[in-house]
Amino acid sequence: MTLNPLIPGSGSIRILDQCLLPYAETWREIDTLEACARAIETMQVRGAPLIGVTAAFGVALAMRANASDTALAEAVARLARTRPTAVNLHWALARMREKLAAAPASERAAIAWREALAIHADDIAANAAIGRHGLALIAEQAARKPGPVRIMTHCNAGALATSGWGTALAPVYAAHAAGIPVSLWVSETRPRNQGLLSAWELSREGVPNTLIADNAAGHLMQRGEVDMLIVGADRIAQNGDTANKIGTYLKALAAAAHKIPFYVAAPTSTFDAACADGGGIPIENRSAAEVQRLSGLNELQQKTEVCIFAGHCANPAFDVTPAALITAILTERGSVAPANIATLLDS
Amino acid sequence: MTLNPLIPGSGSIRILDQCLLPYAETWREIDTLEACARAIETMQVRGAPLIGVTAAFGVALAMRANASDTALAEAVARLARTRPTAVNLHWALARMREKLAAAPASERAAIAWREALAIHADDIAANAAIGRHGLALIAEQAARKPGPVRIMTHCNAGALATSGWGTALAPVYAAHAAGIPVSLWVSETRPRNQGLLSAWELSREGVPNTLIADNAAGHLMQRGEVDMLIVGADRIAQNGDTANKIGTYLKALAAAAHKIPFYVAAPTSTFDAACADGGGIPIENRSAAEVQRLSGLNELQQKTEVCIFAGHCANPAFDVTPAALITAILTERGSVAPANIATLLDS
Repeated sequence: MTLNPLIPGSGSIRILDQCLLPYAETWREIDTLEACARAIETMQVRGAPLIGVTAAFGVALAMRANASDTALAEAVARLARTRPTAVNLHWALARMREKLAAAPASERAAIAWREALAIHADDIAANAAIGRHGLALIAEQAARKPGPVRIMTHCNAGALATSGWGTALAPVYAAHAAGIPVSLWVSETRPRNQGLLSAWELSREGVPNTLIADNAAGHLMQRGEVDMLIVGADRIAQNGDTANKIGTYLKALAAAAHKIPFYVAAPTSTFDAACADGGGIPIENRSAAEVQRLSGLNELQQKTEVCIFAGHCANPAFDVTPAALITAILTERGSVAPANIATLLDS
Repeated sequence: MTLNPLIPGSGSIRILDQCLLPYAETWREIDTLEACARAIETMQVRGAPLIGVTAAFGVALAMRANASDTALAEAVARLARTRPTAVNLHWALARMREKLAAAPASERAAIAWREALAIHADDIAANAAIGRHGLALIAEQAARKPGPVRIMTHCNAGALATSGWGTALAPVYAAHAAGIPVSLWVSETRPRNQGLLSAWELSREGVPNTLIADNAAGHLMQRGEVDMLIVGADRIAQNGDTANKIGTYLKALAAAAHKIPFYVAAPTSTFDAACADGGGIPIENRSAAEVQRLSGLNELQQKTEVCIFAGHCANPAFDVTPAALITAILTERGSVAPANIATLLDS
C-alpha cells in the first residue's frame, strides 16, 4: 500500500491535506499540538480511525514541548474538543493518557511517541484484519452469480480515513488483490464530497468505480444494481446503533427495503461502552458554509471555491443507523451481528 | 403571484432561464419550435407541468411557421423526444394534436395558440386547486401542536415548475397566505440543485426555509423535526407508483419508517393511463457532466462553473416511489389515496 495519509517522522508527522484532494496532493508537516488539533477540526485529516491516530500524535507532540501533568491534561482536553462524534478520538486519548499518567514527566515524551506509533501500527493491523474478514463476505457474494460484485459505499472509509487499507474499503482492496472482480458505487457525500476521495483512491488502485449523487442510491438498489453495502462508522453504541456520515441512514433504510446486506466496517475502538444506544451519540453540527460553498477546478484547472447558496442552511454531519438495519459489523476480531457485540468484545 | 417563469406573448413566449437561477434572473424570448425544444432539453424550463405548457407553445410556434399535417407530426415528435420521464409533456402534446388534427391548416396557427393559452390557464387553475386541498392538510397539522408546521420538500415543484403557484409548494403558499406558520426543509437536490430554486422562491415570498444536503433528510425525520413531506411528480402510474426527481424514493422510505405523512402533489395530467405500475415508467439518464460540474458564484460574484470530478459517473434523473409509501396524492380534483386513483379519474 503506497497511499498513507499520515506518515510519522521522528519529531513530527506529515499529513496529506484532504481538504485539497482530489485536486492537489499537498503534504503538511505537523509539529505542534495546536497544528494537530486544527488539522482535525478543519478536516485536513478525517475519518474516525485516522482522527484517533492523529490525536495520539497530537498528545505526543505536546509532550515533547511540555510533559507536565497539566500539559498532558490540557493536550487531551484540547484534542477532545476537536470533533464530537468519532469516538476513536476519545479512545486514543484515553489510551495515551493511561500510558502517560503513570510515567515520570522526564520519560513521557519518548513513551508518548512510542505509544502513538503503536496506535498507528495497531490501526494498520486492524485494517488488514477487517479486509480479511470482509473478503470472505465478498467472495461468498461473488460465488453466487457471474460478473463483478457491485458494492455501494458512502463517504470515505478507505485508506484516506485510516493508517492502512481503510475500514469499509479494506475488504474491497482485499478482493481486488485476490482477483475477485468488484465494482463500486461511490456516493458523492454532500456537503463535503468525501465520495470524491473514495473514487480517487479506488481509481488509484485500479478498482472500477462510479460516482453517483447521494440521491441515486435508492433507485440503484430498487433496480437490482447493488449486491451489498459497506460503510464505515464513527461511533457504535452497545446495542449496535451506528453513527456514520450523514446520509448513511437513508442508504440503510433502502438496503433493508430491498434485502441487500448492509455492513458496517470499523475497528473495535469505534465501540463506545458508555453509549447504550444511538440516542446517546452526540451529532456534530458543522458550519452552514459547508453547504453553501464548494470547491472545484476552474477552466484553468486552478482550485476555486464557489458560493452556491447564500440563504439559511442546516448541516448535521452524522446520522445514526439503528442496529436493526445492519446485517453485520466487520471488526478486526471478525464479523458480528449487532446483537452479539457484547460477546465479541468479551472474547 | 408575481413570479411566473413563462409569459405568453402574441407570437412568442418569454421564459425565465432556470439554468441561471438563483444567480441571475435572465429572460429569453422563444419564437421557434427548435428553441422551445432546446429550452426543455437544457432545463432552462423544467418541472413536469411547465414542460407540458412549454411544449404546447412549442407546437403553436411550429404551426405559425408551417401548419401542414407533416409539420404538426414533426413538431409533436421533436418535442416528445426532449425529456422521457415527465408525462405531462405527452399529455399536452396529445391535447394539442387532437385539437389541431381535425382543423384545416389555415386555422391551425390561431387554434394552436388559443389551445396553448388554455393549457397554461388550466395549469394555473390546477395549481390553485391543489393549494386549496393541501391547505386543509396543513391546517389539520397546525391544529395538532404549537409552532410552525415543518414541511420537507425535494427538488422544485413550486412556481418555477408550473404556470402558477406550483404543485408541492402551492399548499405551502396557501397556508402562508392564510396566516398558518410554516417552515420548510428544502433538500439541495443534487446534481442539478433545484432545491436552490425552491429556497429562492420561498424566500422571495417570505416563507421561512432551511436548505439541507440531501443526505440530512433521514436524520431530521428520525429526530422528529419533520411534520409532513410534500413533493411533486413527473409521472404517476395507475397503481399510484410515482416517478419524481431522483432522491424522492429515499425520502419516502424514511417518512414511512417514521410514520410521517408523505404527500405527492400533481395535476391529473401527471397520471399515465398507459402505465399500470412504476416498472413501466422510463427513467431519464442525464449527462455525467451534471454530476461532475457545478455552477456557483466566484469571489467577484460572477457565475462560474467548476469541475468537481473527472471520473466515471452515473446520473439517473428520477426514481420511482412505490404507492405503498404515499399517504395521498393531491390533485386539482382533491386528495386521493393511491389505491383510489381510478375512482378519482372516473369522477
